[in-house]
Amino acid sequence: MQIVECVPNFSTSDPKTVELILEEIRKIGGAFLLDVTFDNYYNRLVVSFVGSKESVLEAALKAASKAIELIDMQNHTGQHPRIGAVDVIPFIPNKNVTMEECVELAKRFGKNLADKCGVPVYLYGAASERPERGDLDWIREGDYEKLAENIVKPERKPDFGPAKFNPKAGATITGARKVMAGFNVNLNTADLKVAKKIAKALHAHKGGFSNVKAMAAFIPQMNITQIGMSISDFEKTPLYRVFEALKVECARYNVSIISSEFCGMAPLKALIDVAGYYLKVGNLSEDRVLEIAVHNAMEKGGAFE
Amino acid sequence: MQIVECVPNFSTSDPKTVELILEEIRKIGGAFLLDVTFDNYYNRLVVSFVGSKESVLEAALKAASKAIELIDMQNHTGQHPRIGAVDVIPFIPNKNVTMEECVELAKRFGKNLADKCGVPVYLYGAASERPERGDLDWIREGDYEKLAENIVKPERKPDFGPAKFNPKAGATITGARKVMAGFNVNLNTADLKVAKKIAKALHAHKGGFSNVKAMAAFIPQMNITQIGMSISDFEKTPLYRVFEALKVECARYNVSIISSEFCGMAPLKALIDVAGYYLKVGNLSEDRVLEIAVHNAMEKGGAFE
Repeated sequence: MQIVECVPNFSTSDPKTVELILEEIRKIGGAFLLDVTFDNYYNRLVVSFVGSKESVLEAALKAASKAIELIDMQNHTGQHPRIGAVDVIPFIPNKNVTMEECVELAKRFGKNLADKCGVPVYLYGAASERPERGDLDWIREGDYEKLAENIVKPERKPDFGPAKFNPKAGATITGARKVMAGFNVNLNTADLKVAKKIAKALHAHKGGFSNVKAMAAFIPQMNITQIGMSISDFEKTPLYRVFEALKVECARYNVSIISSEFCGMAPLKALIDVAGYYLKVGNLSEDRVLEIAVHNAMEKGGAFE
Repeated sequence: MQIVECVPNFSTSDPKTVELILEEIRKIGGAFLLDVTFDNYYNRLVVSFVGSKESVLEAALKAASKAIELIDMQNHTGQHPRIGAVDVIPFIPNKNVTMEECVELAKRFGKNLADKCGVPVYLYGAASERPERGDLDWIREGDYEKLAENIVKPERKPDFGPAKFNPKAGATITGARKVMAGFNVNLNTADLKVAKKIAKALHAHKGGFSNVKAMAAFIPQMNITQIGMSISDFEKTPLYRVFEALKVECARYNVSIISSEFCGMAPLKALIDVAGYYLKVGNLSEDRVLEIAVHNAMEKGGAFE
């Protein structure tokens, strides 16, 4: 059985809009919602779902079309970088699927969405066709607000759709990537300047860790700040190491960590590495975990055939 | 599909004997070895395997018969408490199996082994028929060395087999229990007295944590000591809490932790609690783990039917 994960990011936190987008995914047999996260300070909806290649492609297209219909970027504010109503749609190999197959899905998604909705689409990650477009940050530079002036530049010509500013939908980025770990840390300070310094210390492009993006946001409801991180390769740059570095920077500014949360699903390997580090267990691997080993043994023994 | 786990403990660390015992399990179709741990300082072999109820029962009986054939307790030394060649055989519900069904398996195992090999068998844990026999430590009191004098006492009459000392095989304990976490911690001290004080601080019967057994052993090859722990209910008494308490006791004696290891398989829930505690993630649960959620979604969607 082949399984693909898709983690679309939409520029909304309006509960009615969220519900209508999710409904498009739920309608598709063979696509299964795993996680839904949205909040008004980022004004962003992150959905995780899995399924067969065709189910996932269909659900992604239906959900994206609905989002483009409902979201008007001209009224959008939010603390997370974004260039469009359907901001990023990554396809992620989960089981018996290659990265190449996910690249293919992303290209089919991009062409289809551009043709159907007239939205400019960029390919990123493993699907990018120009080196600089491998990096989401490069494509998103200047955000939606600079898109009108950026999109007409030759080096920023979309991979699909018109090289023309679409004020309502903005532009969409799609591609293929490995599983990443999204992790948010709440700090007991309302000082966004301090939080930004802490985020900067971790961010790959700013002298921090390879594979890490980190940003700071203010959460008005709680009058605190949050460090939002993503680790694109948590095997090379394990979560515990980034978290310990974050603690060091927090200590520097006399800031404490209130709590943390995974954004989207927590990858097992990331959790195992955390447990292994803090418990001082060397080489703790997935096949030492009872539930995983039992599943693998049964699968190998033909129990699921 | 029904899955039972069995974690037999045999009183040997002789590689040839180990191999012959494992061979008996490997021969049974439908039984799958997950983990094998043995070392000469405990002089003990711990095996984890899973399978259908009947496969597991058959494999456990075959392996136990082979161990009784090969191991002579009259020559046995080792730092781990034990009363027999086949010391403890627990049956553990894994999937779609109740504790009652595992109790039934343990009783069939015990009766069969006693009839076939003439070994006295005690029932413990959920399979025990007298309250004091719920506790492994009570049954094993005095170890093999006191078994000749203990076994003739009315309150220590075996549940199956003769109430008569068997010098070669000793006695066997079987029963049913929940999944537990076995965890060993290596200390940078060769002082067994200090290690024993640390173990005592954690052990349930000695003022430590409920659900925790802890012992100290000397590892001659490394000239260090080890705290061997088992947590019978790691949801009520989470591993991180016991580990942090162990660190406190170590600090008291200026002892450092060199490394740790799981003895047998690591239960996922125990690892998740560890990761959640150290990362300050509240309510981190199994259904937030990508691999588990995908498996559950696919199973629910009928992918394994």
